[in-house]
Amino acid sequence: MGATMETTGLGNSGAKQLKAIVERIERLLEEMKALQDDVKDVYAEAKGNGFDTKIIRKIVSLRKKNAAERQEEEALLDLYMHALGMASGGLADAAE
Amino acid sequence: MGATMETTGLGNSGAKQLKAIVERIERLLEEMKALQDDVKDVYAEAKGNGFDTKIIRKIVSLRKKNAAERQEEEALLDLYMHALGMASGGLADAAE
Repeated sequence: MGATMETTGLGNSGAKQLKAIVERIERLLEEMKALQDDVKDVYAEAKGNGFDTKIIRKIVSLRKKNAAERQEEEALLDLYMHALGMASGGLADAAE
Repeated sequence: MGATMETTGLGNSGAKQLKAIVERIERLLEEMKALQDDVKDVYAEAKGNGFDTKIIRKIVSLRKKNAAERQEEEALLDLYMHALGMASGGLADAAE
């Protein structure tokens, strides 16, 4: 490749900045891809150990939903307790 | 929470194995989420620096496509060169 950077429009420093941005994004996307592959590997390993991966996917999704609901409940509890002057953050955490 | 692990069916070691699998997957998904947030941050920063993020997304996608095409071309070149007895892997790499 050896791209000769065109400086028209953005200017040299703008072009450099843009290049840095694009490269940072690409690096992050590569890391995400690697993690995706790791997830695939775990599922493959689970399958190799006789587990039904479709059911595990379901479990993971259910736990995610439950976690989100729990967080929402805790946030509401915190809000109501604050509204009633019942709590600092610490007490709400203790009620968990 | 404090889930009391039911051992019916899978047995104690199967249940432990399953728990380890699910937790590994959840950890990987959390890391992916963190990277997603990082990507979002980079785009936000780019926007803050006056770049049009829609166009940057387009650039990233074009570069991904080009990279895939380049890899495909190289693989074909390698295949044809091998078929013609023209090359070891090293030569094909040098032709890049």
